[in-house]
Amino acid sequence: MCGIVGYIGSKEATPILMNGLKKLEYRGYDSAGVAILHDGVIKMVKTKGRLATLESKLGTTDLRGNLGIGHTRWATHGEPNDVNSHPHISSSGKIAVVHNGIIENFMKLKEFLISKGYHFQSDTDTEVLANLIDYNYKGDLVKAVMNTLNDIEGAYALGVICTDCPDEFVAARKDSPLIVGLGEGENFIASDIPAILEHTRDVKILEDREVARITAGKVEIYNLLGEIVEREPFHVDWDVASAEKGGYEHFMMKEICEEPAVLKATISPRVRDGQIQFEHFKLTDEMVKSCEKINIIACGTAYHAGMVGKYAIEKLARIPVDVDVASEFRYRDPMVNEKQITIVISQSGETLDTLMALREAKKKGSHTVSIVNVVGSSIARESDDVLYTWAGPEIAVASTKAYNTQLAVLYLLALKFAQIRGTVDDETIRYYIDQLMQIPDHMETVLQDKEAIQRFAAGHYNARSIFFIGRNLDYALSMEGSLKLKEISYIHSEAYAGGELKHGTIALIEDGTLVICPMTQDALFEKMVSNIREVKARGAVVLAIAAEKHLDEAEKAADAVITIPNIDPLLAPIVAVTPLQLFAYYVSVMKGNDVDKPRNLAKSVTVE
Amino acid sequence: MCGIVGYIGSKEATPILMNGLKKLEYRGYDSAGVAILHDGVIKMVKTKGRLATLESKLGTTDLRGNLGIGHTRWATHGEPNDVNSHPHISSSGKIAVVHNGIIENFMKLKEFLISKGYHFQSDTDTEVLANLIDYNYKGDLVKAVMNTLNDIEGAYALGVICTDCPDEFVAARKDSPLIVGLGEGENFIASDIPAILEHTRDVKILEDREVARITAGKVEIYNLLGEIVEREPFHVDWDVASAEKGGYEHFMMKEICEEPAVLKATISPRVRDGQIQFEHFKLTDEMVKSCEKINIIACGTAYHAGMVGKYAIEKLARIPVDVDVASEFRYRDPMVNEKQITIVISQSGETLDTLMALREAKKKGSHTVSIVNVVGSSIARESDDVLYTWAGPEIAVASTKAYNTQLAVLYLLALKFAQIRGTVDDETIRYYIDQLMQIPDHMETVLQDKEAIQRFAAGHYNARSIFFIGRNLDYALSMEGSLKLKEISYIHSEAYAGGELKHGTIALIEDGTLVICPMTQDALFEKMVSNIREVKARGAVVLAIAAEKHLDEAEKAADAVITIPNIDPLLAPIVAVTPLQLFAYYVSVMKGNDVDKPRNLAKSVTVE
Repeated sequence: MCGIVGYIGSKEATPILMNGLKKLEYRGYDSAGVAILHDGVIKMVKTKGRLATLESKLGTTDLRGNLGIGHTRWATHGEPNDVNSHPHISSSGKIAVVHNGIIENFMKLKEFLISKGYHFQSDTDTEVLANLIDYNYKGDLVKAVMNTLNDIEGAYALGVICTDCPDEFVAARKDSPLIVGLGEGENFIASDIPAILEHTRDVKILEDREVARITAGKVEIYNLLGEIVEREPFHVDWDVASAEKGGYEHFMMKEICEEPAVLKATISPRVRDGQIQFEHFKLTDEMVKSCEKINIIACGTAYHAGMVGKYAIEKLARIPVDVDVASEFRYRDPMVNEKQITIVISQSGETLDTLMALREAKKKGSHTVSIVNVVGSSIARESDDVLYTWAGPEIAVASTKAYNTQLAVLYLLALKFAQIRGTVDDETIRYYIDQLMQIPDHMETVLQDKEAIQRFAAGHYNARSIFFIGRNLDYALSMEGSLKLKEISYIHSEAYAGGELKHGTIALIEDGTLVICPMTQDALFEKMVSNIREVKARGAVVLAIAAEKHLDEAEKAADAVITIPNIDPLLAPIVAVTPLQLFAYYVSVMKGNDVDKPRNLAKSVTVE
Repeated sequence: MCGIVGYIGSKEATPILMNGLKKLEYRGYDSAGVAILHDGVIKMVKTKGRLATLESKLGTTDLRGNLGIGHTRWATHGEPNDVNSHPHISSSGKIAVVHNGIIENFMKLKEFLISKGYHFQSDTDTEVLANLIDYNYKGDLVKAVMNTLNDIEGAYALGVICTDCPDEFVAARKDSPLIVGLGEGENFIASDIPAILEHTRDVKILEDREVARITAGKVEIYNLLGEIVEREPFHVDWDVASAEKGGYEHFMMKEICEEPAVLKATISPRVRDGQIQFEHFKLTDEMVKSCEKINIIACGTAYHAGMVGKYAIEKLARIPVDVDVASEFRYRDPMVNEKQITIVISQSGETLDTLMALREAKKKGSHTVSIVNVVGSSIARESDDVLYTWAGPEIAVASTKAYNTQLAVLYLLALKFAQIRGTVDDETIRYYIDQLMQIPDHMETVLQDKEAIQRFAAGHYNARSIFFIGRNLDYALSMEGSLKLKEISYIHSEAYAGGELKHGTIALIEDGTLVICPMTQDALFEKMVSNIREVKARGAVVLAIAAEKHLDEAEKAADAVITIPNIDPLLAPIVAVTPLQLFAYYVSVMKGNDVDKPRNLAKSVTVE
């Protein structure tokens, strides 16, 4: 989970690398570094901390040259410090490497290299790579990298420079993203497109196990057999400016406020003449009709979206749904077959565990549908069908608008499946489509009430523990509300099914403990009132999230109530999550935390 | 989730009621009370707090009489205080009631009664019952209770006395347990058998919606239509003395130390000639062969046992398994049918949510198998098949030995299913049976190492937050380890899938945060080493639970290691849970908590 960049051309490499890294800081920011090859010598500057620290360190250094690689890191092997920062250089000083991923067999390789006389300064797996390429180097850098890749197990995106090769550098990838940017008399590599967008909009995407030789004038891509591979370039037509904060104090608040607009963008184009339509959808009606089970696989926030998807699909389309954490799905020999549809969800489209789970499901014959926010990402490319969430770039590490749009796509899918299978009548479909189309307006109403949430947060930002309880869809919603709070407030919060708290965890409730209770499910409202009584009897302070129509009853039960507009309970999570996102936001601001870049977290998780 | 008792005969009622309540204190203990009818007047003593408080209050009172009812409470409506304690008496002073359960429509009934001139002192639903019976009383107490039951929605076990009826009292139940004890010239009611065992071993079990008229010489049971129902008495032959602490400081430690013995008692009788045999098992081989899905439903600790069951059944018998929290299962219109087998798990056999889920599954045509510790409990009686865990009485609120024995039964079931379906060969069955038979000895080994866990706990009992991470079976195990710790230490702990922590929750890891990592799954050992590195890179202190054969590698990765004997990874949770139970125990003792009766919790949860 790091960001890498590389440059070769006629300009000064350092400022280009630094600007690229700034666009990749969302991928990691606990340390950073650059290495430049000039006059047959590799010079390197690297440091613990954010890019700003590296920048000030560079200010005092004379790091000139037209070929270089850079890295911004999220620690996996060894703590974040200067020595463990990338790039890493071989004992001989000949080879420097930047790396995103994890080399699983690095301990054995390290022992081998030590026996061959190599020395190590860091705890990282990447220094092993640098020395192994050095060991394999016999005059051709591409060959040295290829031979090295044959020896390693794990995931990688690499940039490699060599003192013997002043006119080229080498890139390679497996299971971690890497693109090549094509300039005029200059070329680039990067983990993600925004890093090179100020220089070029033409890119080639490296596929797994490919190695590229990059010179100022040419990009050659090789497969594992050493054969040249032809790859069509791809033209990027996004608007990078949309990733700016635009007046808000934090990206997170900006992104929450975009929710009405991005929901409209995600829902509207898929509704035509009262019908749900997905463009270029390969999944046939026959496959939907004969589908015996749906697997939904995701991590973190996207997993919580998947929990909502389960309720929606089971209720509307009556297909049984299993929701799985991707890292668990991969390793339990899941019973997947060709009569199942697998839905994977990932904002970045690069979440490694999810990508691997997708491959596992495909291998077992399941048709795969991805719900992804980043066009051209690995998961989008590898799934049989992709339904994009049109949420736009999400910069804040804590995901907000991506979650709401993931829910929107899942509801559309559930309705589509229900229509194909005939499990609900046309009137019901029309009713839900109508309800979905009203959501952007409902969101505006919720956002107008921000200050009530801010006031409530002011009384609770010093809490040690906070609990969320809900039933059914409100349980799925509680999971997401709790995660959001944890991510940015560092308060230990936890979500429980409303009926389950008393089986142990209620022991933690004491005088003044805050319990947040979404109660948007009409049929379970009274049950939640009982659960609220249980925690209040033990001294809890209760914040309820309820529909306007239930305000009076909710006020009788709870200490405070935040209302959402009246909406069909099945769709309530898409609206009710926003007050929970706002609550987490305000608590984080009041605690003085770094809202957009919480400690220990990175935006897209491309390691296991 | 309360305990009720009642007495009529020629002896002083108060000491009999108090002794009975002491045996029911596991059902609740935040307040208690008794009511005695004497000379046409009901006298009542009740108080907030444990039975000891009531006893000292009774010492200063002259509460004489031969007919009475008593109650020990776990609060659901209104906080635990003197006024909200049971018994509750009607405004007129004519009717007194003890009640276990929840009356859902009590607010409406209360408004009605107020309009009729009744006054209320408490916040409870039970006072509504007392006044409604008073309102319905026209000279026959049984009829008054029956008419009242027609008006109410919810769950109840009731004992009712009336100033007009010096020679009888009335009992009734729906969805909460109640038994009648048959004496010589005296009769009893109680929520559970131990309460009356010093007086009689002959009991009749009341069924749902039955009402009993109890005099000193006779017990008449009526159905809802007012017809007399014949019920055969049942003779109890248990040894009550086995429920004593026997030398240990706490029941919890006694029960952990019983694990080797109760596992032997649970496993051995089911293995004959190298085959797994279940007595009186109605589930046929044909049903197992044609089974398309298994549902496992439970709450709390039993739910965590179910998670292990899923892995075991899917791996060995290749039947897909859904594990559900009972309170969630009931309300999501689950897709259950006659081609599915439903397994419900409950120590007490009285867990209300689980009982209701069982009924839902039966109604939908599924064959039901219960895994229960209490013979003759509601769940045992209502399921098609029952497999008892021979764990003996479990008194400590935090479940320990019951969990291990639930796992043992689940493993036996998984092997049985696998054999019937031919998904594993005979040699594999023999191998696992052999491994199962070794478990009691392995448990002894683990228990010998108690002090290492005590020493480790001494360094961490003041922690604010503790995390558990594990993969696959170790994730299920982590859930249980975390719950145990929460229940009795009141430390906020939480369990995560090893690969999922980095999707948000890792933000909570700071210098010195304790992370407990079971790593008993050989195939995932290296993945867990990577996850340990991630949390250690953020300052965590790591305790690993690993097999002896992995001690060296685990010590390289973690700060401390507790080993378990080498055992097949599939069976590891049954042994590895014990160090986690011991850790929770020692932390609770060091904090000076009431280990056996943690705040806010009751042993068996008979409300929703």
